[in-house]
Amino acid sequence: MKIYGDSNSGNCYKIKLTCHLLNARYDWVEVKVKDLKKKETLYFEIIKKNPNGKIPFIELEDDFILTESNAIINYLSYDSKLLPKNKFEIARLQEWQFFEQYSHEPFIAVARYIKKFLDMPANRKEEYSKLHAGGYKALSIMEKQLGQTNYLVGNNLSTADISLYAYTHVAHEGGFDLSLYSNIQLWIKRIQSEINYIKIGI
Amino acid sequence: MKIYGDSNSGNCYKIKLTCHLLNARYDWVEVKVKDLKKKETLYFEIIKKNPNGKIPFIELEDDFILTESNAIINYLSYDSKLLPKNKFEIARLQEWQFFEQYSHEPFIAVARYIKKFLDMPANRKEEYSKLHAGGYKALSIMEKQLGQTNYLVGNNLSTADISLYAYTHVAHEGGFDLSLYSNIQLWIKRIQSEINYIKIGI
Repeated sequence: MKIYGDSNSGNCYKIKLTCHLLNARYDWVEVKVKDLKKKETLYFEIIKKNPNGKIPFIELEDDFILTESNAIINYLSYDSKLLPKNKFEIARLQEWQFFEQYSHEPFIAVARYIKKFLDMPANRKEEYSKLHAGGYKALSIMEKQLGQTNYLVGNNLSTADISLYAYTHVAHEGGFDLSLYSNIQLWIKRIQSEINYIKIGI
Repeated sequence: MKIYGDSNSGNCYKIKLTCHLLNARYDWVEVKVKDLKKKETLYFEIIKKNPNGKIPFIELEDDFILTESNAIINYLSYDSKLLPKNKFEIARLQEWQFFEQYSHEPFIAVARYIKKFLDMPANRKEEYSKLHAGGYKALSIMEKQLGQTNYLVGNNLSTADISLYAYTHVAHEGGFDLSLYSNIQLWIKRIQSEINYIKIGI
């Protein structure tokens, strides 16, 4: 299996972390987001594989290509300990993952991108500030759940945690202060103590 | 089961349509998006049930509350013909649903909201125009798939179709010209010919 991704992207990191937690083998093809955004040669190579022109995606040996980070990590975790079997827990898992893509990533990941990778250009400062309200709202919803259970879906690590962990644990790089969220901090430590844990950016 | 939703919202409609296609009984609690946005009494009532303060969500008899439209319709369709069993098809289904929430809904649904429900205020005209590029890109990706298969995941109707149908079939209300997409038009007709089909806004 090949993973096409940018090592510094949280969405791409979700897949790498899942592979490590599952002891799954993969080849990593490094594709930088900033190079892709130029819409030059690389972009046209990528849209042949993924018409959305985005990373991450995976390519299996029989040319099966799968996009969307959360769909990919659920696929890779099929029949593993990272996916619950019970229909109520499956529902909760998907609830957190859709929450991540709509109410968490567009605020926290984008703020991080503007600050860390674009070096805060003047014309995006207003947008950057606005993103903080949405990001803090998402963090407060996670904090509440993690005051009740050790992981987002009950007391076992699942792909929902991987989905939310990816950008939450680097939220400070987008200017978010995680010291306000003690349950989230404990949850981050819990995930980082997993055997085979791997850091982002490697 | 109670469904809390706005009859004119595509995200809420997904749940109603799924219930009708499955012949499932429900009670509908009408909550208008515009009233919720005022952050007055209704909003504070709703966040007691859904901390994200959004609709739609469902409430089961044992007080189990589930949010996120796509997670809800997958939950309701558990073990039905609307959800594939094969791991590759499950992956494709989720791929389309995450695509919908990240690359389709934020463009097409928001453009529709600005045009149809806010009556195109002057201060959102620039945003409205920008949304069209992203929306047309999403439609072209759907068009390509629907040139290969009758439904988004192979040749059977699934919750992926319901997720994408909700805002696609009313995209003209957001200023999108669907006459350019013949495969999408055929797919819309196919869905509308389902027994028990129900229109949006009822």
